[in-house]
Amino acid sequence: MIAQYPPMGWNSWDCYGAAVTEDTVRRNAAYMAKYLKPYGWEYIVVDIQWYQPTAVNHAYAPFSDAVMDGFGRLLPAENRFPSASGGRGFGPLADYVHSLGLKFGIHIMRGLPRMAAHRRLPIFGSGFTCDQAAHPNSICAWNPDMYGLKCDLPAARAYYDSIFQLYAQWGVDYVKCDDIAREYPHCQREIEVISAACRNCGREIVLSLSPGPAPLEQAEHLKTYANLWRITDDFWDEWPLLEGMFERAEKWCVHAGPGHWPDADMLPVGALRQCDDPNGWTCFTAPEQRTMMTLWCMMRSPLMIGGNLPKNDDFTLRLLTNGPLLAIEKDSWCAHPVRRTAEECAWLAPRKDGAGFYAAVFNLSDQERRIAFPREALESGFSRATELWTGKENDGGELVACLPPHDAAVWRVER
Amino acid sequence: MIAQYPPMGWNSWDCYGAAVTEDTVRRNAAYMAKYLKPYGWEYIVVDIQWYQPTAVNHAYAPFSDAVMDGFGRLLPAENRFPSASGGRGFGPLADYVHSLGLKFGIHIMRGLPRMAAHRRLPIFGSGFTCDQAAHPNSICAWNPDMYGLKCDLPAARAYYDSIFQLYAQWGVDYVKCDDIAREYPHCQREIEVISAACRNCGREIVLSLSPGPAPLEQAEHLKTYANLWRITDDFWDEWPLLEGMFERAEKWCVHAGPGHWPDADMLPVGALRQCDDPNGWTCFTAPEQRTMMTLWCMMRSPLMIGGNLPKNDDFTLRLLTNGPLLAIEKDSWCAHPVRRTAEECAWLAPRKDGAGFYAAVFNLSDQERRIAFPREALESGFSRATELWTGKENDGGELVACLPPHDAAVWRVER
Amino acid sequence: MIAQYPPMGWNSWDCYGAAVTEDTVRRNAAYMAKYLKPYGWEYIVVDIQWYQPTAVNHAYAPFSDAVMDGFGRLLPAENRFPSASGGRGFGPLADYVHSLGLKFGIHIMRGLPRMAAHRRLPIFGSGFTCDQAAHPNSICAWNPDMYGLKCDLPAARAYYDSIFQLYAQWGVDYVKCDDIAREYPHCQREIEVISAACRNCGREIVLSLSPGPAPLEQAEHLKTYANLWRITDDFWDEWPLLEGMFERAEKWCVHAGPGHWPDADMLPVGALRQCDDPNGWTCFTAPEQRTMMTLWCMMRSPLMIGGNLPKNDDFTLRLLTNGPLLAIEKDSWCAHPVRRTAEECAWLAPRKDGAGFYAAVFNLSDQERRIAFPREALESGFSRATELWTGKENDGGELVACLPPHDAAVWRVER
Amino acid sequence: MIAQYPPMGWNSWDCYGAAVTEDTVRRNAAYMAKYLKPYGWEYIVVDIQWYQPTAVNHAYAPFSDAVMDGFGRLLPAENRFPSASGGRGFGPLADYVHSLGLKFGIHIMRGLPRMAAHRRLPIFGSGFTCDQAAHPNSICAWNPDMYGLKCDLPAARAYYDSIFQLYAQWGVDYVKCDDIAREYPHCQREIEVISAACRNCGREIVLSLSPGPAPLEQAEHLKTYANLWRITDDFWDEWPLLEGMFERAEKWCVHAGPGHWPDADMLPVGALRQCDDPNGWTCFTAPEQRTMMTLWCMMRSPLMIGGNLPKNDDFTLRLLTNGPLLAIEKDSWCAHPVRRTAEECAWLAPRKDGAGFYAAVFNLSDQERRIAFPREALESGFSRATELWTGKENDGGELVACLPPHDAAVWRVER
Repeated sequence: MIAQYPPMGWNSWDCYGAAVTEDTVRRNAAYMAKYLKPYGWEYIVVDIQWYQPTAVNHAYAPFSDAVMDGFGRLLPAENRFPSASGGRGFGPLADYVHSLGLKFGIHIMRGLPRMAAHRRLPIFGSGFTCDQAAHPNSICAWNPDMYGLKCDLPAARAYYDSIFQLYAQWGVDYVKCDDIAREYPHCQREIEVISAACRNCGREIVLSLSPGPAPLEQAEHLKTYANLWRITDDFWDEWPLLEGMFERAEKWCVHAGPGHWPDADMLPVGALRQCDDPNGWTCFTAPEQRTMMTLWCMMRSPLMIGGNLPKNDDFTLRLLTNGPLLAIEKDSWCAHPVRRTAEECAWLAPRKDGAGFYAAVFNLSDQERRIAFPREALESGFSRATELWTGKENDGGELVACLPPHDAAVWRVER
Repeated sequence: MIAQYPPMGWNSWDCYGAAVTEDTVRRNAAYMAKYLKPYGWEYIVVDIQWYQPTAVNHAYAPFSDAVMDGFGRLLPAENRFPSASGGRGFGPLADYVHSLGLKFGIHIMRGLPRMAAHRRLPIFGSGFTCDQAAHPNSICAWNPDMYGLKCDLPAARAYYDSIFQLYAQWGVDYVKCDDIAREYPHCQREIEVISAACRNCGREIVLSLSPGPAPLEQAEHLKTYANLWRITDDFWDEWPLLEGMFERAEKWCVHAGPGHWPDADMLPVGALRQCDDPNGWTCFTAPEQRTMMTLWCMMRSPLMIGGNLPKNDDFTLRLLTNGPLLAIEKDSWCAHPVRRTAEECAWLAPRKDGAGFYAAVFNLSDQERRIAFPREALESGFSRATELWTGKENDGGELVACLPPHDAAVWRVER
Repeated sequence: MIAQYPPMGWNSWDCYGAAVTEDTVRRNAAYMAKYLKPYGWEYIVVDIQWYQPTAVNHAYAPFSDAVMDGFGRLLPAENRFPSASGGRGFGPLADYVHSLGLKFGIHIMRGLPRMAAHRRLPIFGSGFTCDQAAHPNSICAWNPDMYGLKCDLPAARAYYDSIFQLYAQWGVDYVKCDDIAREYPHCQREIEVISAACRNCGREIVLSLSPGPAPLEQAEHLKTYANLWRITDDFWDEWPLLEGMFERAEKWCVHAGPGHWPDADMLPVGALRQCDDPNGWTCFTAPEQRTMMTLWCMMRSPLMIGGNLPKNDDFTLRLLTNGPLLAIEKDSWCAHPVRRTAEECAWLAPRKDGAGFYAAVFNLSDQERRIAFPREALESGFSRATELWTGKENDGGELVACLPPHDAAVWRVER
Repeated sequence: MIAQYPPMGWNSWDCYGAAVTEDTVRRNAAYMAKYLKPYGWEYIVVDIQWYQPTAVNHAYAPFSDAVMDGFGRLLPAENRFPSASGGRGFGPLADYVHSLGLKFGIHIMRGLPRMAAHRRLPIFGSGFTCDQAAHPNSICAWNPDMYGLKCDLPAARAYYDSIFQLYAQWGVDYVKCDDIAREYPHCQREIEVISAACRNCGREIVLSLSPGPAPLEQAEHLKTYANLWRITDDFWDEWPLLEGMFERAEKWCVHAGPGHWPDADMLPVGALRQCDDPNGWTCFTAPEQRTMMTLWCMMRSPLMIGGNLPKNDDFTLRLLTNGPLLAIEKDSWCAHPVRRTAEECAWLAPRKDGAGFYAAVFNLSDQERRIAFPREALESGFSRATELWTGKENDGGELVACLPPHDAAVWRVER
């Protein structure tokens, strides 16, 4: 099954914005294969505007000449992705990633390139033209590249089929579709058509929807048509955003399950914003990064690293290779918070094997606090517990930790 | 601990409205002791206006002469509760209930009787008078009896202390406090003061808040200050209300835990509305009653029977004495829905002992449907499953049931 | 016709709150007769809680012993209104006011006294009792005295008829009914019943509704059933409240006309808050008072003086006796703003006699400004204009004034 | 001054949609000059998509090849407007209209043509290019032609200046700017820049804003920057739309004045929808047309005929040439409703010359009704009144009419 567990990987946005290059992707893939793959990390995802020859940072150049084939299908800009030359698209890069034992993903915007509509390009494998599929009044509010499609028309379905067939040919394993997961009136239908194209393309491709926040009332629709969807707007290395995730996680946790995962967005750790500042680094403190990793694992969010991997320092690498912590994503189910105040939060997640559970506490305050997991919430005693950041053992007493501001503790508890 | 598990019992409202009498209470208690106690049922709760001599049905007589002592504390109307004569209040009736091995509860409105304020009665054990504690502009929107209190004043705290001390003397085990759990601006503070009086009265008393719907944003406040709180307006034997509970249960399920239980309200089964029609009976079909019992148990809602117990027929008695089903309330934790559409719903609840889990499916449609529990949501195989309404065994295949409209199936699954 | 022009008078609230006495009323009436009557001032209105023996300021004592007759009709407290002794009510005081050539008004709360309901007093001239008319869940949000009525019942109509007949006997000319003109769900019906009682009582009584803001969508209902109604919450001597009136006046001006007048509330001028501070005085500057008087006159608001008249200084007396300004209330019609920005406002009002119009400009800014009435809005030239605060003449050029902060100018213009 | 009185004219939309041709315009202009000019009608306005060669009805073809010059300025499609050949634009057509003693207007969309941005065309008279001025994420919700501009940039101002200079050269007297007057967040600034370009172009051009409803809170902004603005969405020949105009007129009437006129939209009378059906005709009854003309005149709305003039029948021509009725637009001021219920409405408008006023009554019900103008609202007697649809004289009694459903009466009253 697709996305049986929450996908884990790397995405180019946080470090390279719209300006990622093949060279960078290869170096991150190589790093992942060497250092992270043993811990379950496997996806390498090229984010937005890989078809744009002039992108230099996180901004989107308007009215640019996006690279496309004669059927209005976007192609990687060859000046940025040399292996795409000769019309080979992302095929060679995907091959390379696969050769490392990893999986390859790309970002797309819903719709088709504006100029493909204005030029009335034919849609591959159909008698339609792009102007017949495109909706001239449906655009993205923040990106200048595309027109959304008239999804009730066969022409629209033909276009989406044509691109997913191309992605399948290239060997794409993961598509992050953007401008579609917020509360847009049109998006329910467009998600359905994209999902159908993805499911029918002949290759297993994870379908991820952005940006957030997705509307909670759409939970069942999202679970049916996508594998993951963002529950927030873009997440960055700022404490208020991390603090705010506890409320979102509480609302969405009941919707996490095999094949459908509420997504708390990328992990802004290590070397960030490299396109703007070669020395860019996460502003999260070490405790905040532990809190983030703990919450993401407890809620079983997908994990997509945002930092430039080759620059990882020891701390970052250890953060990302805490095997017992990452195991929560696969071993647990039915997680939920048992308490959430302005100062503290506590989460509980039973283990599927029945041998115990995971319990986490978070210090949301700006002071050091001694925080105990609410004893009554255990509903029973336990024989042994191991705190997963420190390795400290506990043989049956209280689950309690002295935590610096914004830090977390999480125990693997044996019945 | 108070309310370690969701309280289970009987309440007089659905069958007798404001007009319940001692005789009725005793007969229901006797029935419970004989037929229901072995299955965990234990609370006998006298609902609203027991202090009102003239109540005859579900309506509230305005400007009535509520019975009270010289300190503005309401007393049972002796014409309805003869054992209360001589100022003994509910003591004798509580004694009787206790003698059966059961527990005794009463309903109260927040505030103090209007006439206690107008008469400026002294507050027991304090130098204050009732007019000092009462807020002349804080009344209930639907009941004419009380003034709310100025909860920041010591006089208000003194009054609430005085009534809970009286209830403790009587031997009350459960207080259902009304006009307080909806989205009222004043209620947060009034809940805190009532909770403190309850906790400090010297007796373990379960504190239940009504009416609903309680605001979801207040979840942590409610968990801190109350043992149960209504998540809906009054629930009656109408399918749309039962159907609507699935959405509420989804939102509230993460907040259920020892000591604090979101309350889906009474179970309108068997003989209802006896005060209006001696032949009154639930309008729920047998499938709907199974659906209700299954959902309430899976979400670990408190269970309060609304029907006149001595009139129970075989079906109703069996419905209420399905031991393996009722065990879910104590054995499971971390329940949540895994799918909810207009036609179907499925819930999952791990067992705390780790040996398996519970899985339920609901047919919300008006047609018979074959409904399978989503296989991928199991995340593993299982050795054996027993359907708890039919007793049918299943040795590891699919969890599936052919269900009439509005019916449910629920399996106890062994790993 | 009742209220052919906007009523002008004095009201006791701003200077004496709930604690006004007969002596004060008489002295204000005598002052009005001597100094203000020639300018059109005529109503003397006794505001809230004249039935309350213990009132001392603007606060309302809860659970007090309101004075009432055997039919639940409130009577003046004799310790405050000695002439009311012997059951004569406000008759003697009304006679005195009439003897001065003035008119007499009183304030009432909608509903009947709470204790009249609890005591089940008979309703005069009917077979009903007060508990039958009162609605136990309809109270005022800020005053503790009354229960609203069940206005669809004959008992409610009987009660309102009984009090207006009493007021007619007393010689009341003006009733300010409170707790009824804001956006309350119940009020539409209660206004209709009160209005009918007022119209049928055998005496011409102006009906004024409070508090505001009345909902604009109810304009036609208010015009049908009342003579004036408040367009704001209580207005006091604070610039932001006065500044805010320009927006309200713009919305309501089209609804002003004979018999029905949007009411901008009392004029807090001169000696205010006497019950709290014998030296209390308006905080409005002289310019602000001119702005207030000019706007109230241009929009044809009722004019009710709030200050203790005998303490008027020269400025205040001149402010209230600017005959040419006050004439706007009677001479003009169809007034409306022609410009309103954050800094300036301009109003235009044609004269009914066709011989010209009134034009006003207001400096809403905190700086001195030269403000011209928008020339194009005149749509023609004019022969002569007189500024009504300074008396300056203008023979046909621009209507322009240099105004200190918060000041106003207003011209009577001859075609 | 521009638009001293509400503009009166003809607009091509209601009869020809996006497909109007030069021939049609000329024939309507000739008709107007011959039959309507004496009554004040003077504007001939070419509505939307005159630059679109393939338009055939009210729909907008997406991704079409709009005709434009080398500076991204739209030009009339020569296949539809032959006199525009040779780059002469609307100059020859404007000359023709002027030769008839009439004025010439055109419709524009805010922004610049999408392809002008994609082609990076230079902006006339500046060093900028169209892609610098255009905002790629600001488009119309219902028309596919344009990108809105980044109005804080000099490039945007340069573009708007360049088109208004062209319009001035052509001899345009009236510009109806569309996609700008509803509650859009961006529009305040874009209105200001367009207004400045219009005011600075060297020719007096009326600036009209569409579509509606314009937000009432923006009234002062609209009065400052435009000459007219729509107070409704598109108005068509359906009674509910006409009935709804009474509420809008009540809210907006205080904002009508020389230079700035709230616009109730076109008059759908006579031959409509000619592009879809050569026999198309208004669905309004004769009474409804009288009600529309009466309300539009009383509120001083601009008057733009929507029907194909040469096809006017006698009724329609008489409707549009009721001189005494049309005189209200110029003779009156300060109009407002004096009563508005579900069944009836009455309006009053003083005459500027002071010799009298206009009074109108409307039957909004579906039954014949005898409707009197509220006598007290006159505030005086009168000597003589003439009903302007029937010519009936009245020498001082009541203003009353027996009206069929949806009909109106309006009197010119002499003091």
